[in-house]
Amino acid sequence: MKISVLTLFPEMFSVFDSSIIGRAKEKGLVEMEYVNIRDHTLSKHKKVDDYPYGGGAGMVMAAQPLVDSIKVCKEKNKGKVIFLGPRGKTFSQDMAKKLSREKELIFVCGHYEGIDERVYKHIDMEISLGDFVLTGGEMAAIPVIDSILRLVPGVLGREESFIEESYSDGLLEYPQYTRPEVYEGDKVPEVLLSGHHENIRKWRRKQSLLITKKRRIDLYKKVELSKEDVKILNNDKI
Amino acid sequence: MKISVLTLFPEMFSVFDSSIIGRAKEKGLVEMEYVNIRDHTLSKHKKVDDYPYGGGAGMVMAAQPLVDSIKVCKEKNKGKVIFLGPRGKTFSQDMAKKLSREKELIFVCGHYEGIDERVYKHIDMEISLGDFVLTGGEMAAIPVIDSILRLVPGVLGREESFIEESYSDGLLEYPQYTRPEVYEGDKVPEVLLSGHHENIRKWRRKQSLLITKKRRIDLYKKVELSKEDVKILNNDKI
Repeated sequence: MKISVLTLFPEMFSVFDSSIIGRAKEKGLVEMEYVNIRDHTLSKHKKVDDYPYGGGAGMVMAAQPLVDSIKVCKEKNKGKVIFLGPRGKTFSQDMAKKLSREKELIFVCGHYEGIDERVYKHIDMEISLGDFVLTGGEMAAIPVIDSILRLVPGVLGREESFIEESYSDGLLEYPQYTRPEVYEGDKVPEVLLSGHHENIRKWRRKQSLLITKKRRIDLYKKVELSKEDVKILNNDKI
Repeated sequence: MKISVLTLFPEMFSVFDSSIIGRAKEKGLVEMEYVNIRDHTLSKHKKVDDYPYGGGAGMVMAAQPLVDSIKVCKEKNKGKVIFLGPRGKTFSQDMAKKLSREKELIFVCGHYEGIDERVYKHIDMEISLGDFVLTGGEMAAIPVIDSILRLVPGVLGREESFIEESYSDGLLEYPQYTRPEVYEGDKVPEVLLSGHHENIRKWRRKQSLLITKKRRIDLYKKVELSKEDVKILNNDKI
């Protein structure tokens, strides 16, 4: 997948040089391009923002540098133009899945004071990370791009990809344990040491259900409990 | 504010060297410390993860390196220990506000395969960025820390801080425009050029209400409309 990012702070995206996404870039599965919006301003003093019409605090990012950056970018990247902003639909795993099927994407990072409304004509989609305020669109672009890229085939190892499936049932994860068997006096639950795969599966399912019910009743309400789920939940021995 | 981050990828946090948070660090308003979890493993081969008890794909971050990192960190940072993970409460502006009043905070970044359950004894709070999967806790820690730090007094300039208030009413922002008056044939709305402050205020309020209603009906339903709001909404001339 090819991703272009329009930003005033290209250096922030060195975050993708490490770990899983860094490896994916080295393998050629992911190509990232950063376009500095400031390079495309026609202002003499390289300004990219200006006072808002009608008054008020803060500066507004001007249309020209943003729109010209988008136009230059589109010559080499035919993907959807996505703006990270508060008016967008809240980002979700479903959106990540859909976007991970695209071949190219363009992300536009604004600043929280706002952008000139006339830029929106050139935007295909607006995504909001959540109901909180950030210093800039970069801070939202980073997790959004990360969660999309990890779904691109080959980016996660084969082992890691398996885990994906456990998220797709809409439940929170069951507790995990690794060596040693006893840590700070706490022992790994007996069932996980039993080697009894069927019991382990049931125990994990029950834990997932209970944790989701306790922590995220909104998710739990959406789950359709199977007959086995009901049995497991009523069985005190699991 | 002092923030310590426990991570396997300290280099990812160079994202905070630029822009607003970068300036806040230079001014001494914010102190950031990064602890590499790998430096605290007792494993000969510097391993930090291991196979899960009970089988299954993926690796689990072991308790010892994580817990020892937390303990070392707590000698110099007395703040809450916050883990970025899917079981946490979904991050919000209210949480950002509350946490911005703390003097010190410790953030623990795990990886999406999970951490040994016994680490949770040492965690005070778990935060989830949203309902999507990331390659690591770092990708969530970055926006969470950003949105907390921008609320620390002095981090935003006086001008920028003013804007904050416009978010606190639970509405999306009204459209912003800056020079030029005409761009690509689109003119700035007349009212914003009128210099009539009262009309500008009403126009902006109406736009905020309409945009919020259209884009985020969930937020709109929570707003208590004032008598003036109802008047503005029914007045076609605004």
